[in-house]
Amino acid sequence: MSTLKIGVIGAGRIGKVHTETIARSVPEARVVAIADVNLAAAKDLAARVNVPSVSDDYRKVIQNPDVDAVIICSPTDAHAQHTIETAEAGKHVFCEKPIALDLPTIKRVNDTVERCGVKFMVGFNRRFDANFKKVKQMVVERKVGDLHVVKITSRDPGPPPAEYIAVSGGMFLDMTIHDFDMARFIAGKDVVEVFAVGGVMVDPAIGKAGDIDTAVITLVFEGGALGIIDNSRKAVYGYDQRLEVFGSGGMVKVDNTAPDTHDYYGPDGVHSSLPLNFFMDRYIDAYASEIKEFCQVVGENKPVSVGGRDGLMSVAIALAAKRSLAEHRPVKVAEVLEGKK
Amino acid sequence: MSTLKIGVIGAGRIGKVHTETIARSVPEARVVAIADVNLAAAKDLAARVNVPSVSDDYRKVIQNPDVDAVIICSPTDAHAQHTIETAEAGKHVFCEKPIALDLPTIKRVNDTVERCGVKFMVGFNRRFDANFKKVKQMVVERKVGDLHVVKITSRDPGPPPAEYIAVSGGMFLDMTIHDFDMARFIAGKDVVEVFAVGGVMVDPAIGKAGDIDTAVITLVFEGGALGIIDNSRKAVYGYDQRLEVFGSGGMVKVDNTAPDTHDYYGPDGVHSSLPLNFFMDRYIDAYASEIKEFCQVVGENKPVSVGGRDGLMSVAIALAAKRSLAEHRPVKVAEVLEGKK
Amino acid sequence: MSTLKIGVIGAGRIGKVHTETIARSVPEARVVAIADVNLAAAKDLAARVNVPSVSDDYRKVIQNPDVDAVIICSPTDAHAQHTIETAEAGKHVFCEKPIALDLPTIKRVNDTVERCGVKFMVGFNRRFDANFKKVKQMVVERKVGDLHVVKITSRDPGPPPAEYIAVSGGMFLDMTIHDFDMARFIAGKDVVEVFAVGGVMVDPAIGKAGDIDTAVITLVFEGGALGIIDNSRKAVYGYDQRLEVFGSGGMVKVDNTAPDTHDYYGPDGVHSSLPLNFFMDRYIDAYASEIKEFCQVVGENKPVSVGGRDGLMSVAIALAAKRSLAEHRPVKVAEVLEGKK
Amino acid sequence: MSTLKIGVIGAGRIGKVHTETIARSVPEARVVAIADVNLAAAKDLAARVNVPSVSDDYRKVIQNPDVDAVIICSPTDAHAQHTIETAEAGKHVFCEKPIALDLPTIKRVNDTVERCGVKFMVGFNRRFDANFKKVKQMVVERKVGDLHVVKITSRDPGPPPAEYIAVSGGMFLDMTIHDFDMARFIAGKDVVEVFAVGGVMVDPAIGKAGDIDTAVITLVFEGGALGIIDNSRKAVYGYDQRLEVFGSGGMVKVDNTAPDTHDYYGPDGVHSSLPLNFFMDRYIDAYASEIKEFCQVVGENKPVSVGGRDGLMSVAIALAAKRSLAEHRPVKVAEVLEGKK
Repeated sequence: MSTLKIGVIGAGRIGKVHTETIARSVPEARVVAIADVNLAAAKDLAARVNVPSVSDDYRKVIQNPDVDAVIICSPTDAHAQHTIETAEAGKHVFCEKPIALDLPTIKRVNDTVERCGVKFMVGFNRRFDANFKKVKQMVVERKVGDLHVVKITSRDPGPPPAEYIAVSGGMFLDMTIHDFDMARFIAGKDVVEVFAVGGVMVDPAIGKAGDIDTAVITLVFEGGALGIIDNSRKAVYGYDQRLEVFGSGGMVKVDNTAPDTHDYYGPDGVHSSLPLNFFMDRYIDAYASEIKEFCQVVGENKPVSVGGRDGLMSVAIALAAKRSLAEHRPVKVAEVLEGKK
Repeated sequence: MSTLKIGVIGAGRIGKVHTETIARSVPEARVVAIADVNLAAAKDLAARVNVPSVSDDYRKVIQNPDVDAVIICSPTDAHAQHTIETAEAGKHVFCEKPIALDLPTIKRVNDTVERCGVKFMVGFNRRFDANFKKVKQMVVERKVGDLHVVKITSRDPGPPPAEYIAVSGGMFLDMTIHDFDMARFIAGKDVVEVFAVGGVMVDPAIGKAGDIDTAVITLVFEGGALGIIDNSRKAVYGYDQRLEVFGSGGMVKVDNTAPDTHDYYGPDGVHSSLPLNFFMDRYIDAYASEIKEFCQVVGENKPVSVGGRDGLMSVAIALAAKRSLAEHRPVKVAEVLEGKK
Repeated sequence: MSTLKIGVIGAGRIGKVHTETIARSVPEARVVAIADVNLAAAKDLAARVNVPSVSDDYRKVIQNPDVDAVIICSPTDAHAQHTIETAEAGKHVFCEKPIALDLPTIKRVNDTVERCGVKFMVGFNRRFDANFKKVKQMVVERKVGDLHVVKITSRDPGPPPAEYIAVSGGMFLDMTIHDFDMARFIAGKDVVEVFAVGGVMVDPAIGKAGDIDTAVITLVFEGGALGIIDNSRKAVYGYDQRLEVFGSGGMVKVDNTAPDTHDYYGPDGVHSSLPLNFFMDRYIDAYASEIKEFCQVVGENKPVSVGGRDGLMSVAIALAAKRSLAEHRPVKVAEVLEGKK
Repeated sequence: MSTLKIGVIGAGRIGKVHTETIARSVPEARVVAIADVNLAAAKDLAARVNVPSVSDDYRKVIQNPDVDAVIICSPTDAHAQHTIETAEAGKHVFCEKPIALDLPTIKRVNDTVERCGVKFMVGFNRRFDANFKKVKQMVVERKVGDLHVVKITSRDPGPPPAEYIAVSGGMFLDMTIHDFDMARFIAGKDVVEVFAVGGVMVDPAIGKAGDIDTAVITLVFEGGALGIIDNSRKAVYGYDQRLEVFGSGGMVKVDNTAPDTHDYYGPDGVHSSLPLNFFMDRYIDAYASEIKEFCQVVGENKPVSVGGRDGLMSVAIALAAKRSLAEHRPVKVAEVLEGKK
């Protein structure tokens, strides 16, 4: 089998992670082109992993005849355009989430990749986390029987800068979107209705930016199973990502991972380490698994496990949650998907 | 100090527990009278703990001039009447929850005990559980800082008989009522709004009886903190009662208790014991603490920690949850309390 | 069945525990006589649980024609005499551990009770602890397969007064004796050889009293399985009693029990409660189970599960450990049992 | 700073791990030469990480003028010769453990590297495991106060082939040697005496090869603290590597790591994942940390943390343990070191 040749658009944090994973751990693929509007960043990354083609123009990656597939790590507002151009160049696409912040754009992207017949994978990295995969496996194996309740706790160690919130679409679209995808992934079913309550409890600046920082979201899945997500922009004890699934056959839950397993018994209690504090630490193996799967999907012509519809639905649920919060009522996802008002 | 003399109405399961606790562990009090419509049950219990006065008429307990205080363990629909008559006889009352299933009756009871100037304690035993008390203590000590989210998981090992559901008022009034009280206890704040979703996932007979068996309930507390309760009438792994509180200062959670601490490492995994399966096992110490506190409250003329207002509010929240479920919208507790429709 | 009538010699801490357990929880038995050289203590206890006969002379208990069985909670140096007199009066005996501190005396006691044909149970309460019983059960069920290693950690929250050490026989005889019995109980086999190392690490006063306060003891069981005990007179974090069994089929271990299950996630770590700090708290249920079993053994003429031979062997192992420490060599238990030097 | 140029002798499992770690994660170093008597293995590894010089003769690595430091991953019986030749060529050495199986050879190696003035690091990878490092840190920070007892559990998932045992020097020298080093590392003190008991419980073939497969070893540290190691060649539940340290200030223990954190609550118990089963999985990060430290030690001229004396002492303790087992008596390490007997 010939080596799969990969182009990367965006040499920021996540672009580096994917590029280095391929360099280190995916012998059947090679990154051959990198572009970033910050040319220095692109050059630096290219030098580190021996990538021949570097540019500040993403089109140099897409149009590079050597490139078989493109990993899109550009800012969110460029995802759609980059995906469409790549697909139209007949190349496979891995796109970081979200595809876009509005449904018409996402639908346009999905239509394009389908029309072009290329692979299209969306970067919901948490699906590749060993803990969450284990839960999924146990659900698939029917260990929890019929699904009754999915519970997701998802708290960040600290809020992003207020200016980020302004462009991110808000908490539901930049943070909870992962949890919406996780809910669908674990349940193996679509979310049909959302009810969201929330408030500004962490930082008034977030409220001024028009967003909330704490939320509790009730989900109803197709078929009637229920879901709960609770979010906070700031847990003083670090990154908190837990999941519990309850059903007729039992319950499975996964906890955070910590840097070590120590328990210290001192005069005033038992102490142990906090969970890994940074998403890059917590999910570093998940990012690697994800990009390895993409290389396999393309290289061995396998079906994509997280595709355009997943990208669409997570945003649709987020938009339904925003509307639910604004209008203080349960909102059907279909209402948002179908553009009803 | 003279011995506190107690009368007990109802010699069923919970009547026995309270009577025996006093006999064994409350040297400053003594049960001197027991009544139950099932006279044999009353006699049996009286014999076991050496109680002189036994009757099938609860009035014999209330009117017994030796009795200082009455513990009411009769069926729910008699709680209000028994409490009112006891109070009007000038005697202190401990009443099992709920006081009644409708708010006007509860208000009438509360007005009566207040007018009569007797102590009135309501049997929310879980407040006396070592785990939940520890959480409360940490909240009071400000270890979790400002409260953001209270999460309660409450699942029974199996549903009650369908005929019970018919008279119990349904899941929110016979089961979730404990969780509503717990939410108020932990938060130290009233619940102002409820949103409930649920379904029949355990047993269609429950649905036929007009009730649900699985629910997810969102709470909004006075001041804006949020709450989540998830309930099931049947967890195949037993009685599941957990609590988590998250705030600006940290998070505290408590787990179930198990009959032993063993971990078995075998060829196919690590195995440990299921949680205590029966509420009497899980809460046996809590029941004892509760009734000891009642004896102290009366004997030492201390303030009651769980009183008529708590009995009222838990039912009000339950009724709001019922309405929320029926009308599929968030419902203010005030709407129910004030009898609005 | 007629009620079993019990006499109690010794109204100190453990005498109280047994007496109250019977009063509260053993309906088929009744304490009818109590004696203690401290008459006030005896009277106080008798009053609390309604015992008719009280004395400062233990013979009043033994000779009381109403008494069927005697529970001996006197000081260690009186155990043998009290047991012998009780047996010779034709009454059943429950004796707190150790029977005596020297083997000839214990053998004499064992011979006497055997000759008299009475039941004789020795108070190794830890065998009745839910955790250790679970381990025993899993060993019996062959879940750990062939036994390879038994590991016991046993640490006290603080050392006893130096004067106690002078009369107790030292750490191996007053503290480790429980662990020696536990080792035999769990393995279901005798200990054939001991090697002990230790030192004075907690308090020099203990060293001056001729004892050690910290030890590691290697055991070899009949058939070749191995054992390890590690002891300390002082763990600053409280009472530490753990057990692990490893074999061809797997491993089972049990942990301490804590007053609650809370985990607090704060800015500087995860914190939870220390283990129960006091042996009376940790083993309160074990004491109750033990004395209930004794009442059944006598009342229903069942075989004794912890008898004179167990009392003998635990002391023999302790004496072998003392000799091993003194002579710095592995010592066969037979060497001690057979009085070799 | 110029790039550190590394040669690797031995392209087997551990040679690959070190080579790939440098290629991926140590930008300041580069592997420039690889040798293995199995030339194909050397070529394969060289190709994967782009190493220019490949040979079946280890001298090609040592004599390569480009090479600054050599990592010795050859079979145990070649460690000493390769280390001596490398040192005499004036190059720094990282040598896998053990340096040799006899003390005179190890002393000769240590003398040589000292005389040649090169860095010499020995591959006790477990010192670099996050869990054990955390314990060490807490000991150094005096969290456990004065050290009283160090407890190490170390069990393999399965025994090596009988032919390996014949050349490995036996369990104490090929397996427990890690635990002996860990004991010294954690205590920060030398072991002065050893007492070992053991037997053949896993596989009679091991007994025929003259070795044991199960052992309990008591250690006495300089100054009097005590240690316990328990070993088995076969735990059916996988690789079991735990550590506990107890002292005047408290206790710290670390557990195994598992592939995920799931707890499944089913009808018959709570189930979770077994520990990582393979030493390469458990210690993969430790191997990487170790070799990174070596690169830093050489590149930045820092002191070696695990050196020749550590290599010597671990073998000395192992030999003392062998003698203790054979002669069934406590054996001073000095007795072995000084060649008495």
